[in-house]
Amino acid sequence: MDRFVITPRVLSGFRDYLPEDALAKENLLLKLIPIFRSFGFLPIETPHLEYADILLKQGSDEIQKQLYRFCDNGGRDVALRFDLTVPLARYVTQHKQELGLPFKRYAIGSVFRGEKAQKGRYREFTQCDFDFIGSDCIVCDAEIAQIIYMSLEALNVGEFQICVNNRKILNGIAQMLGVEQNINDILRIIDKLDKIGKDGVYDSLEQLHLKKQVIDDLLSFICLEAENNKGDFLDSLLAQNRTHECFVQGLKELKEFFLILESLPLKEECFKISFCIARGLGYYTGIVYETFLKSMYSLGSICSGGRYDNLTQNFSKEKMSGVGASIGIDRLLVALKQHAIQQNAKILIVCMDDNCFLYGNKVASLIRSSEKVVELYPEAVKLKKSLSYANMRGFEYVVIIGSEELQASKVTIKNLRTSQQQLLDINSIGEYFY
Amino acid sequence: MDRFVITPRVLSGFRDYLPEDALAKENLLLKLIPIFRSFGFLPIETPHLEYADILLKQGSDEIQKQLYRFCDNGGRDVALRFDLTVPLARYVTQHKQELGLPFKRYAIGSVFRGEKAQKGRYREFTQCDFDFIGSDCIVCDAEIAQIIYMSLEALNVGEFQICVNNRKILNGIAQMLGVEQNINDILRIIDKLDKIGKDGVYDSLEQLHLKKQVIDDLLSFICLEAENNKGDFLDSLLAQNRTHECFVQGLKELKEFFLILESLPLKEECFKISFCIARGLGYYTGIVYETFLKSMYSLGSICSGGRYDNLTQNFSKEKMSGVGASIGIDRLLVALKQHAIQQNAKILIVCMDDNCFLYGNKVASLIRSSEKVVELYPEAVKLKKSLSYANMRGFEYVVIIGSEELQASKVTIKNLRTSQQQLLDINSIGEYFY
Repeated sequence: MDRFVITPRVLSGFRDYLPEDALAKENLLLKLIPIFRSFGFLPIETPHLEYADILLKQGSDEIQKQLYRFCDNGGRDVALRFDLTVPLARYVTQHKQELGLPFKRYAIGSVFRGEKAQKGRYREFTQCDFDFIGSDCIVCDAEIAQIIYMSLEALNVGEFQICVNNRKILNGIAQMLGVEQNINDILRIIDKLDKIGKDGVYDSLEQLHLKKQVIDDLLSFICLEAENNKGDFLDSLLAQNRTHECFVQGLKELKEFFLILESLPLKEECFKISFCIARGLGYYTGIVYETFLKSMYSLGSICSGGRYDNLTQNFSKEKMSGVGASIGIDRLLVALKQHAIQQNAKILIVCMDDNCFLYGNKVASLIRSSEKVVELYPEAVKLKKSLSYANMRGFEYVVIIGSEELQASKVTIKNLRTSQQQLLDINSIGEYFY
Repeated sequence: MDRFVITPRVLSGFRDYLPEDALAKENLLLKLIPIFRSFGFLPIETPHLEYADILLKQGSDEIQKQLYRFCDNGGRDVALRFDLTVPLARYVTQHKQELGLPFKRYAIGSVFRGEKAQKGRYREFTQCDFDFIGSDCIVCDAEIAQIIYMSLEALNVGEFQICVNNRKILNGIAQMLGVEQNINDILRIIDKLDKIGKDGVYDSLEQLHLKKQVIDDLLSFICLEAENNKGDFLDSLLAQNRTHECFVQGLKELKEFFLILESLPLKEECFKISFCIARGLGYYTGIVYETFLKSMYSLGSICSGGRYDNLTQNFSKEKMSGVGASIGIDRLLVALKQHAIQQNAKILIVCMDDNCFLYGNKVASLIRSSEKVVELYPEAVKLKKSLSYANMRGFEYVVIIGSEELQASKVTIKNLRTSQQQLLDINSIGEYFY
């Protein structure tokens, strides 16, 4: 009787990482982690699964609908996390005593959202967040920006620009124009500027029944930006309006922020003030960031974040403020695919006869190191087959061992790039690959 | 009106990693990854969530009952993965064309089992697997053992012993004793030797209605082991019995296996032949491993695995053999807690006045590097408060900056171990921490 076989497949909206992509992702994370750590950030880990009520109160209605929520075998109402921020809020409230403040953490992990399946959108994706919790000082906001900068420099992903704004400035403008009651809708619409353009924003604002003059004023305001002379730009706005407290406060914070960044050895042109940066999420209250690659603007922001003044509002009556950002791992991987990836030397050892494997293993262990990938082809096959394997896997060198090499304590090394071949003594092989 | 607040808590059987533990885990993985890579193993990633039918056919009945299975918003019958092996089987069948054979992968990730809550057992835990797929050669089995060895050496976790057996030897013995129809039950019982002792195994075997003589023979056989002169040990068994093919084949494979390992610069005493190693799981068919720490034998095996001759049986009619192992991350972390962890230098910069922060940031960026954690305390607070923070977080040095230091372009460095304090010029601070 034929055995029943299940068709191997993944769920719609989910994906496997092939080795090449998993390697690129791992390499990326291996570059980010030392940067987070060098600023004193510590890793934490929380479960993928939480009580549903923990997750249900935060997040937009849309995200709530996308929740993977179910009843576990013990009858508990549970759900897969949809971000790393709500679990962080739960975590810092729960462990406040052990953690102490200020507390700086990074977290890297999968989150789940049952979004409509569409190209480039996945229902499970990786978030990489870092947050500075428990201090209101602008020093922290500047540190987060510095980490974004250092991360992108380390990834060598081409020219980038960190666009900075302050929610207080946007709130202040809404106050000045007398539309503060519409502020959440306005922010949501401004946040779409990238996608729907200026005309789209105009149309959407009209639907809020705002006056034409107000819409024009709003639009001309959010188009303001400054790349150079940020201090002068902010000073001139401060000179124009000193009466609206929230607006003034927002400008002063940005001044302090750039004063810090400009005193550090960072490229000034990598930072821009851009009043159209709104960040859709409700919980931001201060400085906000989005980051774009100059050569791939259409990718969208590859690193976003900002300051919030009450992270833990659903879990505690005590306020806990902070500032953080999230690196878009998947978008960065798309961008990095455009850049050449530098790899360690890759060497394949091929034994032509079964009796060569002891010698082959010995040769492998002589040259293997953390800087070199040394792989032993496990079977004695025709050279054609092992060379085709070497090409498929992108090896640079093949070390060939047959009976002659074995008897003479030698190896034949073939450089697959140049096709040059060379007979070497086993004692000089370490030197060859040094 | 008082806002309703949700009690922060994690699900029973789940856990948060506090920074100290998350850091230890990350450090452990950062040591393992370069080892896997240096043997030509590549990372892969599969979703946490799979179609339930993919997961349902494999795994023991017990594991099936522990499955986190539910119906998603699209009406699909889905489940959280309970291991990384079933997803691997699905993955290699599905992507066979792109992957090519042999294929060597490692995977690190969370798996979920709704086990009865008990101390030290978690419903979400980390697996770290590496597998060599698509070759029957003993060279592969030896390579897996070599990676286990290298990993434990790199982790510096104390003396360990990799215990090796071959399923074929156990099957052969069952044949010789005429009890091959009970082999699965027998293996399951032998696998519990550690937990229930020799008497417990005796009692359990009696319940299978085996004859007393058979039980005695079985027990005396599984107590055989060899640490030194493994070749002689195997030769003497081969000399005693050359008629039972399966048994002989098992011994010959072990001979070849140790011939390879003993030709490499590995400590011989780290390997042991132990006929009681059975591995409960049904799919093993050849050489199997378990690894124990000499100082913490009670932890159980910290790295187990073996050879299987049909990984993909549920997904394909084509056979795919391989050999792999799984490192017990959580058990190793328990063991590593006993050892001192070497950390990078940790330096806290403390500004005594608000106007010192620009200078403080500059000092921080001067000395920060991937080998040094340099943290800036974000607020100007009393020295007592920042020193207590430094002690809580385990900093070694505090760099103090007040108005005097700022004006003179100096810093005060306090070594928290020796309590010595020193005034330094800003230009010599890099040298000081070099």
